[in-house]
Amino acid sequence: MVHKATDDKLVLGIPKGSLQDSTLDLFARAGYDIHVSSRSYFPGIDDEQISLLMFRAQEMSRYVEDGIVDVGLTGYDWIRENNSDVHEVCELVYSKATSRPARWVLAVPEESDITTPEGLDGGIVATELVGVTRRYFEAKGLNVKVEFSWGATEVKARLLDGIVDVTETGGSLQANKLRVIDTLLTSTPRLIANKKSMAVDWKRRKIENIALLLHGAIAGKQKVGLKMNVPRAALEEVTSLIMDRLPPEKSPTLSPLADEAWVALEIIVEEKIERDLIPDLKRAGASGIFTYPLNKVIP
Amino acid sequence: MVHKATDDKLVLGIPKGSLQDSTLDLFARAGYDIHVSSRSYFPGIDDEQISLLMFRAQEMSRYVEDGIVDVGLTGYDWIRENNSDVHEVCELVYSKATSRPARWVLAVPEESDITTPEGLDGGIVATELVGVTRRYFEAKGLNVKVEFSWGATEVKARLLDGIVDVTETGGSLQANKLRVIDTLLTSTPRLIANKKSMAVDWKRRKIENIALLLHGAIAGKQKVGLKMNVPRAALEEVTSLIMDRLPPEKSPTLSPLADEAWVALEIIVEEKIERDLIPDLKRAGASGIFTYPLNKVIP
Amino acid sequence: MVHKATDDKLVLGIPKGSLQDSTLDLFARAGYDIHVSSRSYFPGIDDEQISLLMFRAQEMSRYVEDGIVDVGLTGYDWIRENNSDVHEVCELVYSKATSRPARWVLAVPEESDITTPEGLDGGIVATELVGVTRRYFEAKGLNVKVEFSWGATEVKARLLDGIVDVTETGGSLQANKLRVIDTLLTSTPRLIANKKSMAVDWKRRKIENIALLLHGAIAGKQKVGLKMNVPRAALEEVTSLIMDRLPPEKSPTLSPLADEAWVALEIIVEEKIERDLIPDLKRAGASGIFTYPLNKVIP
Amino acid sequence: MVHKATDDKLVLGIPKGSLQDSTLDLFARAGYDIHVSSRSYFPGIDDEQISLLMFRAQEMSRYVEDGIVDVGLTGYDWIRENNSDVHEVCELVYSKATSRPARWVLAVPEESDITTPEGLDGGIVATELVGVTRRYFEAKGLNVKVEFSWGATEVKARLLDGIVDVTETGGSLQANKLRVIDTLLTSTPRLIANKKSMAVDWKRRKIENIALLLHGAIAGKQKVGLKMNVPRAALEEVTSLIMDRLPPEKSPTLSPLADEAWVALEIIVEEKIERDLIPDLKRAGASGIFTYPLNKVIP
Amino acid sequence: MVHKATDDKLVLGIPKGSLQDSTLDLFARAGYDIHVSSRSYFPGIDDEQISLLMFRAQEMSRYVEDGIVDVGLTGYDWIRENNSDVHEVCELVYSKATSRPARWVLAVPEESDITTPEGLDGGIVATELVGVTRRYFEAKGLNVKVEFSWGATEVKARLLDGIVDVTETGGSLQANKLRVIDTLLTSTPRLIANKKSMAVDWKRRKIENIALLLHGAIAGKQKVGLKMNVPRAALEEVTSLIMDRLPPEKSPTLSPLADEAWVALEIIVEEKIERDLIPDLKRAGASGIFTYPLNKVIP
Amino acid sequence: MVHKATDDKLVLGIPKGSLQDSTLDLFARAGYDIHVSSRSYFPGIDDEQISLLMFRAQEMSRYVEDGIVDVGLTGYDWIRENNSDVHEVCELVYSKATSRPARWVLAVPEESDITTPEGLDGGIVATELVGVTRRYFEAKGLNVKVEFSWGATEVKARLLDGIVDVTETGGSLQANKLRVIDTLLTSTPRLIANKKSMAVDWKRRKIENIALLLHGAIAGKQKVGLKMNVPRAALEEVTSLIMDRLPPEKSPTLSPLADEAWVALEIIVEEKIERDLIPDLKRAGASGIFTYPLNKVIP
Repeated sequence: MVHKATDDKLVLGIPKGSLQDSTLDLFARAGYDIHVSSRSYFPGIDDEQISLLMFRAQEMSRYVEDGIVDVGLTGYDWIRENNSDVHEVCELVYSKATSRPARWVLAVPEESDITTPEGLDGGIVATELVGVTRRYFEAKGLNVKVEFSWGATEVKARLLDGIVDVTETGGSLQANKLRVIDTLLTSTPRLIANKKSMAVDWKRRKIENIALLLHGAIAGKQKVGLKMNVPRAALEEVTSLIMDRLPPEKSPTLSPLADEAWVALEIIVEEKIERDLIPDLKRAGASGIFTYPLNKVIP
Repeated sequence: MVHKATDDKLVLGIPKGSLQDSTLDLFARAGYDIHVSSRSYFPGIDDEQISLLMFRAQEMSRYVEDGIVDVGLTGYDWIRENNSDVHEVCELVYSKATSRPARWVLAVPEESDITTPEGLDGGIVATELVGVTRRYFEAKGLNVKVEFSWGATEVKARLLDGIVDVTETGGSLQANKLRVIDTLLTSTPRLIANKKSMAVDWKRRKIENIALLLHGAIAGKQKVGLKMNVPRAALEEVTSLIMDRLPPEKSPTLSPLADEAWVALEIIVEEKIERDLIPDLKRAGASGIFTYPLNKVIP
Repeated sequence: MVHKATDDKLVLGIPKGSLQDSTLDLFARAGYDIHVSSRSYFPGIDDEQISLLMFRAQEMSRYVEDGIVDVGLTGYDWIRENNSDVHEVCELVYSKATSRPARWVLAVPEESDITTPEGLDGGIVATELVGVTRRYFEAKGLNVKVEFSWGATEVKARLLDGIVDVTETGGSLQANKLRVIDTLLTSTPRLIANKKSMAVDWKRRKIENIALLLHGAIAGKQKVGLKMNVPRAALEEVTSLIMDRLPPEKSPTLSPLADEAWVALEIIVEEKIERDLIPDLKRAGASGIFTYPLNKVIP
Repeated sequence: MVHKATDDKLVLGIPKGSLQDSTLDLFARAGYDIHVSSRSYFPGIDDEQISLLMFRAQEMSRYVEDGIVDVGLTGYDWIRENNSDVHEVCELVYSKATSRPARWVLAVPEESDITTPEGLDGGIVATELVGVTRRYFEAKGLNVKVEFSWGATEVKARLLDGIVDVTETGGSLQANKLRVIDTLLTSTPRLIANKKSMAVDWKRRKIENIALLLHGAIAGKQKVGLKMNVPRAALEEVTSLIMDRLPPEKSPTLSPLADEAWVALEIIVEEKIERDLIPDLKRAGASGIFTYPLNKVIP
Repeated sequence: MVHKATDDKLVLGIPKGSLQDSTLDLFARAGYDIHVSSRSYFPGIDDEQISLLMFRAQEMSRYVEDGIVDVGLTGYDWIRENNSDVHEVCELVYSKATSRPARWVLAVPEESDITTPEGLDGGIVATELVGVTRRYFEAKGLNVKVEFSWGATEVKARLLDGIVDVTETGGSLQANKLRVIDTLLTSTPRLIANKKSMAVDWKRRKIENIALLLHGAIAGKQKVGLKMNVPRAALEEVTSLIMDRLPPEKSPTLSPLADEAWVALEIIVEEKIERDLIPDLKRAGASGIFTYPLNKVIP
Repeated sequence: MVHKATDDKLVLGIPKGSLQDSTLDLFARAGYDIHVSSRSYFPGIDDEQISLLMFRAQEMSRYVEDGIVDVGLTGYDWIRENNSDVHEVCELVYSKATSRPARWVLAVPEESDITTPEGLDGGIVATELVGVTRRYFEAKGLNVKVEFSWGATEVKARLLDGIVDVTETGGSLQANKLRVIDTLLTSTPRLIANKKSMAVDWKRRKIENIALLLHGAIAGKQKVGLKMNVPRAALEEVTSLIMDRLPPEKSPTLSPLADEAWVALEIIVEEKIERDLIPDLKRAGASGIFTYPLNKVIP
């Protein structure tokens, strides 16, 4: 008998491998305490309604579709590879490594004469993403032999005619002197759920609750608290400087100060605008500027 | 001549081994800068009145009793094992690994017929905690041979009749197919001091000061700052939601905002209530909710 | 053709090796997102006007002088060793390891009769800092053969007559039973720039901007936010307690509270005064004291 | 253009991964000097007619069939999985790890009710050997969904209905509390060649030569030289003791000694009979018995 | 029920820890094939009459005495520490690490005034060998507190008054600036057996057989085969050169050669005399001298 | 005072780093037992007339010249780099890694237009071998700036104009897409001695003795013992087959066999001819062919 998600527990799938650490960190920031022992596939969690399973991201969507897992995290690429019929709850861009989407690209050696997918007709290509790659060439009416690659794919570009491999920055391709000639897929992490599980009320609410807290934790990582003292005379300019950049999570909180000529301004902003914003604020008259880290931000 | 704690330095014992990293992290959060080089037993500290020694947690209480160390951190289990005559300053539950007390349990193989300590009469038991275990069986009037185990105790449960081993979650016992039949001792970290050192005024004050800062740092790790804007109309409900959960470190700090219909509310709460509290606060009308990490909390 | 810094990119040199981790951490705190793959010498950064190169701290100033790098981080020692003609933008004391300046000292075995540099006349000394050491002895009119040492310099002090080696705490010298007889140089990290790059307007502004943010991040690491509620009656004493210790980044921000007998006080202070200040504040009547970490502090 | 085996070089494929070390050791014993740098896929060899490529054992037979490799080492399992049309030169049982054939078995949890392959009809099975497994169930007319497993297959036996996994001693199955219900395949290492390559005279001869030397090296590892002095009177008994055990590689070499009452006897025997044979030889009157290691044995 | 050595299996104890690798290597050379998986305490062996258990050398003699193990390897030191009533089958000096006996010495800091055991009267000593050390001081009528040391004993020599620690070359003592003032015990590995097991005929014979093969393997490692051609005229001198050095395992085997003026001489000698012997042999007229490794030597 | 080689000890320098393991292995095969602790620069040796020092190969010749070491092992490259005035005792090609001479080559990026050393005039080159490289360009009258490279030299070929780096197989150059345009130096390991030490009789004899044993051990590693039974009728052909290949260490040893139609033939041959010779011997009628490893071969 297959291990099946039951009615009294929500089975949550955590991706083992490259996404594992950032996933566990995300759940920790969202307020869940997960214990993974190094050899176990069944981590513990401090929520009695949830039980956890670990799978490779590559496999996750299959087990969500099969109902072995109610809700799980994986990449869009492997959902497509597996052609899985699942409910996508939301996209979650939660780790530095995943803040730029992974691209699966068709690449050939720099010195190759091939410049288009059509140039590979009759050739051999190695990839870990066999299904997507085959469908890609079939859709183009091209006769390309697609071999499954057991790792070190980039080395095979010179032994065969080309490869389909995943890249974020292109750095590894460059290091291997490969040239991209097409992009098959871009992928980000997704929270996916079994369709039947979404039809069970308490499970759907719990899944939405998890999604909310995960988003709050992602926002907490990307944003910072920003505080400064502003002369009342400069308040308008300072406020507009902030508003010009990014829609902040909320409008600034203004608090009176003991010295009535000044007001304290506090706001939550994207961390990445800090480095441009701060010099402008200083020039506009703000003083005592500082920023501090956040745990969670709920708009 | 034995190295003895002197009158002008407080000798502080740091436990080497499994508690070491969390102890050093705790002191760092408390404001002490400790330098441990990988092979040294004499770490440095940025307080001229303190000198440090490292011992295994198993040995610490002996050297505190002997006066070689004035004050040290160790577990309650090893204080009992060594039967040490020391002053217990306070309990410190400071690391994830120690947030649930360690239990020393008497365990037998799952398939064993033995179900009570009495069933071991005439048998052999292995343990690292020989003294406590011998006293335990003697108190029960049982004739059990207690062998000191040099590691890998859980393996010996099947070679002998049973073991006394330490466990936190019971996971390792389960993995080894062992069954707990009694608990001899539960243990948490303790700050202990030499009795003569406590009679020296400046040493006692310094020890109490260290205890205070360590507690402040522990609280700082378990709590978060929570801020939100609340419509004055909703203030009562929001406040009672918070108060219902957990006694907070202090009652909320309310600050007027520029928009007089709203008030800023700030409070320190246990991090673990966050995931239930936040949705309720949002529903009650709070907005711009965010949480941020703390260093130290002194009530 | 040599890779040259171009007009449209600011080439920033990151020191590979012992300064690497703290440098990357500093840039992260300053708001720059740098991706270093383990074997790459060309990290990525989320600023399109900057491209990165990694060199050993020992080599950096040469490549800054050559114009291969516009601006880079290295130690003062290696700038002197290489006798590089570069613009020093600022000093940056940014990591625990570098918070005390590194000293390059002339050391001899404890049992040696030599007690002054003159005692080495006619002898042999090993060092990694050959240039500085040669100039040092030449300036003294001493005839000392200076050998370049390929690591493990401290071992050679007994094989030759002495060594010139770097030390922070003196611990390694002590462990090797060496005695310092002179200090040649003290060194801290520096941000240095190519002189021609400083003459290009946009590059100079960008470099100054980086220096500002790095300083802000350093301050953010050394300081904490401190908050408490103070009875109006105690405000003067509390304020003077704070002012007595250290010139704070700014004077305290005082906010009225709902309960008018109290006022909320917030201030940025050096983390290192916390452990002495907090007990005094408590005694003076402050309550609900807590501290929290900061990202960046701009005075 | 695909990298193709050419007419003037014999391309030899070495399996990367679990067979790698024992394969390189075998070639070294056979007299070939192979240089593998840790990251290279193109090792060097001291034979100008051979060039080397490294592939995973799983991939090898494909590249032999494709002609990218003329001759390669891999397991019988992966030849079957890939359904590769290659020439099998010989079986090579060359490492401790491979001295018992690997078995691919169908296994279910110990507590499962399933006891025959038929019991899995309608179920799901995970394996790395998808092709073989699918053909196995099809041949039995069973409807079993076969999922490719990305490692840690044994964990999935409880999540799905069963697994097909490789085992040598059964130890890992036992550790995971799994029960074998059928064996699909037993596998040993094979030397396989491209069929066209075998039709080229010099390549076929070279391949056969390699096979001969590899066999000689395997024999050299399993056998030892055994020497002793035997009184002429005891020669018959000693000889029959040896001949009773195992057919030796050749009959004993008898050499006259200076003392004519004795004769020196030398023979090559399986190392594994040594521990029983030696006491008997001693008792029969042989003296000065010793054994020594061999490099290569050609019958 | 305790796991007890049974009548149909000989339970052999292998020491886990520092002796483990050399013990396994010794058994391999003796002709036994032992499989140790990294986490198992029950290794496999290719002899159906033997089953294996692993214990720490420190514990072995207790379990031999208790009859849980029939025969085991451990050090003489731990037999004495445990005061175990066991049958000592033989001494086995089988690894480079154990080729010089381990000495347990009483050591004090170099700068200590203490120069005799009596100087420690009234002091504290740390050691892992508590029992032997206590009996040692009692026999001398000295009042010394002996503390069990959980590792890093050498560090405690300066914290307490002295230590009793194990040393082979004295290197670690020297590195820690300690001075030896007495030797309590010298220890070599021993094969020990349960006394009741030795009374069972087949077990005693099997144990003696194992001892014989282990000795043969130790000799095989320490000796080499030496061969040369000797002019008949020089035979007497060559033979006496060999006989002068060391009693060889047997007198030389002389074989006639095709050229009757010469004779082939072959002999087994201690490897360590090679470097002095070979130049002398050459000078005496021997030619074509070579040496080769051995597996096993049975006198 | 400098540590100086004394009259009663021969100070032998062992190269630390890449040559270290093969050097220690060579001395072990030569019959010397050297103990290196992981952090020590003063290994022990079982010869009371020798004391050991470890230096990097790069430094060795300087210390031999200076008389700190009497005799040491290093590479020819670093003798040239240091321009050391030392006595070269002999060349020693003793490890797989050194069996092909290391070449120091001038290399440029594959895509560079530079094809001759002259093309680098006015450019910058990085290398670890600064002295040799500078002299090389000076001798050609070229103005090339030579920068000392602190590791990862190959990366700098694209940042500067070229590099001078060491290579054995060219593999790393190829991996970095570099093209060799000239070879500056080829290097093999050398045994070198201080000139004054060679003038001391007992030291010179001891040094020559060491050289002899090291050569014997190198030969023992490169050669094997080869034995077979040959029909008297085929003896001439078999002998000539052997003699055709390589001058063997000595002519074959022929021993009569019990069966007078056959003769036993034993000979020492280079291991590397085995793989070609054995098939020919078999075809010529030899039977029971086997080879075995050697320790030491003295011609």
